[in-house]
Amino acid sequence: MDSYPQSPLTTSMRSPEKLTYDHATVHAILDEGYICHVAYVADGLPRVLPTAYGRIGHTIYIHGSTGSRAFLTGRDEGLDISLSVTLHDGVILSTSWFHHSANYRCVIAHGRARTVTEPDEKWAGLAAIVDALAPERSLQSREPTTKELAQTAVLALDLESVSVRSRSGGPNDDPDDIGSPYWAGEIPLRLVPGAPRPAPHAHGTPPTL
Amino acid sequence: MDSYPQSPLTTSMRSPEKLTYDHATVHAILDEGYICHVAYVADGLPRVLPTAYGRIGHTIYIHGSTGSRAFLTGRDEGLDISLSVTLHDGVILSTSWFHHSANYRCVIAHGRARTVTEPDEKWAGLAAIVDALAPERSLQSREPTTKELAQTAVLALDLESVSVRSRSGGPNDDPDDIGSPYWAGEIPLRLVPGAPRPAPHAHGTPPTL
Repeated sequence: MDSYPQSPLTTSMRSPEKLTYDHATVHAILDEGYICHVAYVADGLPRVLPTAYGRIGHTIYIHGSTGSRAFLTGRDEGLDISLSVTLHDGVILSTSWFHHSANYRCVIAHGRARTVTEPDEKWAGLAAIVDALAPERSLQSREPTTKELAQTAVLALDLESVSVRSRSGGPNDDPDDIGSPYWAGEIPLRLVPGAPRPAPHAHGTPPTL
Repeated sequence: MDSYPQSPLTTSMRSPEKLTYDHATVHAILDEGYICHVAYVADGLPRVLPTAYGRIGHTIYIHGSTGSRAFLTGRDEGLDISLSVTLHDGVILSTSWFHHSANYRCVIAHGRARTVTEPDEKWAGLAAIVDALAPERSLQSREPTTKELAQTAVLALDLESVSVRSRSGGPNDDPDDIGSPYWAGEIPLRLVPGAPRPAPHAHGTPPTL
């Protein structure tokens, strides 16, 4: 099973058993999620923002307005980022406050994101971001104009320093608490699509997410 | 309507109409969410991690192991963080690649988080984190022991530099694209609890989230 390399940034002394690195697990989480949180540093202070993303192979693409602070900062020499995609699978209600928790699958990737300047890669990165919303959506919508392309900056983060942290299963209660009078267990959570709401100008049938 | 003050960190030149600051909207999003993403700076580089949180009034509480890097860093003089709670309400499929988007409600707060040392506030902060999972859950589970408290660090972020960014409604397609042959609209998303899975030692009935 092919895996990403472990590094000081992607390992944990406290709970190494929660961490995995194999390509398939990383990619499956990235492909299931819709929104990532990107952290970067501006004026020495941390910033975080949610944004859409797409994946091609071992690269994550994000985009933004060419006028935005994050993308202006990163224009030339790239932008150091930390990126997380978190799927929240359940609430863990334990017998003790201490063991309350969450079931989740989370990818965290670090690195210097590069501004994509090569036209073919920029095009492919934007298509990947659109296709992450619904399968082959880039074929079912109008491609960007030259003007739209110029307004859009694309950043690429190559997956090198990346790990998956996850938790599943029920509460890890202390043996001493087993006789306690409380309910304990997991309440699973799932992000569920509702009925599509067509725009007045919609043609054809909605895609399945 | 009481609002948080606007500052350079919480305003946007590009899309000010997406931003709001009123207490009620900020608190409602924080109270609906389960997981926040916290960004901080370590060795000059950005880090992001998902974690549980709770709110009391104008303060967000997060917790972690006293051995974790983020909390060790912040022990004395506090830790500069940027914190986001994002509720993903829908996928926006537009006629053009360019106008694909998401419906969402997102709180972003910045500031120097302080390590909570006062015992009553630490207790209340931990109770808020537990109660954020299910109503009054802190009354329906065992309180922490002295040892558990010593293993747990609590950080508090007072809400001062905070804003809500949100989008709702259908696609903002260009008038020129209205006749295009594509489906366009919103596919709503909702985080839905499934059937509770009791632990073998559970007593009583599960709470409703």
